[in-house]
Amino acid sequence: MMINRERFLRMMNEQATFGATPDGGVSRPALSAEDMQVRDWFRQQIEAHQLTYAIDGAGNQTGRLSSSKPNAKTLLLGSHFDSVPNGGRFDGALGMIAAFETLLSIKDANLDLPFHLEVVNLTDEEGTLMGITGSRAMIGALTHEELMNPRGGRERLTDGMARAGLSDDSLLSAQRDPDSLLGYLEVHIEQGTRLEEAKVDIGVVTSIVGIRSYWMTFAGEAAHAGTKPMDKRRDAFWGAAAFALRAQEMIMADFHPGVVNFGQIHLAPSAFNIVPAEVRLAVEFRHGNREELDNMETALLEQAHLAADEYGLELDAERGDSLRPAPMSDSFVNAIEAAAEKLGLSRTRLLSFAGHDAQSFAIVTNSAMFFVPSVDGISHNPKEYTKPDDCVNAANVMLQAVLEIAKSMG
Amino acid sequence: MMINRERFLRMMNEQATFGATPDGGVSRPALSAEDMQVRDWFRQQIEAHQLTYAIDGAGNQTGRLSSSKPNAKTLLLGSHFDSVPNGGRFDGALGMIAAFETLLSIKDANLDLPFHLEVVNLTDEEGTLMGITGSRAMIGALTHEELMNPRGGRERLTDGMARAGLSDDSLLSAQRDPDSLLGYLEVHIEQGTRLEEAKVDIGVVTSIVGIRSYWMTFAGEAAHAGTKPMDKRRDAFWGAAAFALRAQEMIMADFHPGVVNFGQIHLAPSAFNIVPAEVRLAVEFRHGNREELDNMETALLEQAHLAADEYGLELDAERGDSLRPAPMSDSFVNAIEAAAEKLGLSRTRLLSFAGHDAQSFAIVTNSAMFFVPSVDGISHNPKEYTKPDDCVNAANVMLQAVLEIAKSMG
Repeated sequence: MMINRERFLRMMNEQATFGATPDGGVSRPALSAEDMQVRDWFRQQIEAHQLTYAIDGAGNQTGRLSSSKPNAKTLLLGSHFDSVPNGGRFDGALGMIAAFETLLSIKDANLDLPFHLEVVNLTDEEGTLMGITGSRAMIGALTHEELMNPRGGRERLTDGMARAGLSDDSLLSAQRDPDSLLGYLEVHIEQGTRLEEAKVDIGVVTSIVGIRSYWMTFAGEAAHAGTKPMDKRRDAFWGAAAFALRAQEMIMADFHPGVVNFGQIHLAPSAFNIVPAEVRLAVEFRHGNREELDNMETALLEQAHLAADEYGLELDAERGDSLRPAPMSDSFVNAIEAAAEKLGLSRTRLLSFAGHDAQSFAIVTNSAMFFVPSVDGISHNPKEYTKPDDCVNAANVMLQAVLEIAKSMG
Repeated sequence: MMINRERFLRMMNEQATFGATPDGGVSRPALSAEDMQVRDWFRQQIEAHQLTYAIDGAGNQTGRLSSSKPNAKTLLLGSHFDSVPNGGRFDGALGMIAAFETLLSIKDANLDLPFHLEVVNLTDEEGTLMGITGSRAMIGALTHEELMNPRGGRERLTDGMARAGLSDDSLLSAQRDPDSLLGYLEVHIEQGTRLEEAKVDIGVVTSIVGIRSYWMTFAGEAAHAGTKPMDKRRDAFWGAAAFALRAQEMIMADFHPGVVNFGQIHLAPSAFNIVPAEVRLAVEFRHGNREELDNMETALLEQAHLAADEYGLELDAERGDSLRPAPMSDSFVNAIEAAAEKLGLSRTRLLSFAGHDAQSFAIVTNSAMFFVPSVDGISHNPKEYTKPDDCVNAANVMLQAVLEIAKSMG
């Protein structure tokens, strides 16, 4: 049993006409006029195929194919139609069309699965408003505080809510009973080059990485860049640079595939002829495994203290935002691998280093996702591209994975 | 023959009453009302002691003790009475009072030297207007362009000139015939801790360091701090940090007492979760010897290129301001050392890493300077302090050095 390739590719093209940009991308920030257009089209598609359409208080759109089984739970298949401003036509949309086509193929085959199947378009995955908003609303993880101070600004949020007929209250009450859910499954473009370089068809995500961050402040002593002999200086930049270099080497050697980044640095006083007294360094690190993330944190703090001591500096390490690793469901991972196997597609296990809605669902239910290759790893860009065969693989693996999950339930 | 200790210390205290600050320092920015007060007092002192007072087109005040020798040249003894805002009472002023006391002691002894002796208060050494302004005016090194765009702003300069009865034209025409000069001699507080730590009385400057600077731009590739594997990154910060660390170690190991500083750094894009694509690093280095400064420059550029290559980056090295090293006069250095010897004072040769008027005079005539210890190296600060005995040493070495120079002329 395979998906309908022609229908699938036609829908891939059609969705890309909403918010289309001249260079072949799409621009559909969450709940913008363009996003409302694609949402309207999606509702029509669901209704045209006699699936049950619904929209919840967070604007999440669903199309349901019901099971006849009493007390059946629901397996969500989804992604998002929203994009970053001037993004590509695959990020999110491929997952949506693959999920929708999976439902249509199962419906065409008149299969009665042991669970309800719902395709879901999750609101604001990209974060032009708040980030993985729809999925967090569904697990009850949004807060009033965040709604008052959303990442993209309150006005943009209220404008979007007005356009979609939503409200703060509706967002906060969109939670879905987790006991009613069997799980969540998503396919997404890789947004990286690991699959392409390894010439592998399917990347099975084992965990969406956790993220931790610090502002590390190294404090020494300002001094005249001429009169202060170098061996008497307490140069905060030397300590910060030594830490950053050693940390980079350590993470590559001991914590692969974990990553660390130093994305911001601020010196004070900032002058050619003054030895820096203070350096603030932004440190962000990611790993898919909570224990390894703990170990990375310990090792990074130790390296920072060693560098500070070596250069006669004080260290202040201020912990910033963090996000827990979201391990994917073993049984769903196995189902995806079995699906790829059945289709004769090569596969590898990997971590997702970017955030996705699957991380929200992982907190309350089975959650899993897989990747197909992105040409040159380009993403969030009109040049984003995934070959038609890889898109079709995405939908076929999704379909087979659903069948594997059904099979595993007897 | 010794200076008059009591008179000398009395004048040291008296000068510090002009522009005095509550915490024991002085605030006499060049040609400010407070600077005009100390200038007026100095003129009165010169006249009261029957020396010949003059002021040139740059506001440089001189008190002259003439030689009876036909065609005698002039030996300038000087420093500056101006200070940084909220500075100390020794920086500049000690050199002025030591020079003045030297003239008075020679006059008291009725010595007829083979050169005219002039004490000189040089305008705006500190650079609240332009920097070593008076000495550069005397060697004809000021430009109309700089007067139009002075470091401290045009308004401050025009206000100061008005207060002192000067003009752009008068500053530009204040040049003194270099053939009329025998040389320039100055004593200054060290503004560092080398003498104090080595427990040495007198630091004989062999050269005022040259300074060169660069903006070095390391360019790599912006990337997602999660999805881009670390071994595929072209992280501009890694290259810049590696360069800075290696350069610091290299300069300390191979170019002592030369120094390097990295006083500013700017990352772009500057975000926690983006691998830096571009780093602009400010590099400033100093050495007393021109050839060594050339070698430092070559070695630093080589290290920067090596680091850029290693991390897959492009390097753009843009040369900024530079200042030539100013080697001091050998015969004057010898005279200062002989003077210290005669007085039973310990001495060491060293470089001046800060700028002084002696660097202007070194271009056209014999120029030399020496340092006495600064307690804890504190300077440009009301807490600046040099012990009375060290101040007296400054004046006595100045006096003996003048006598040594006279002796060497037969």
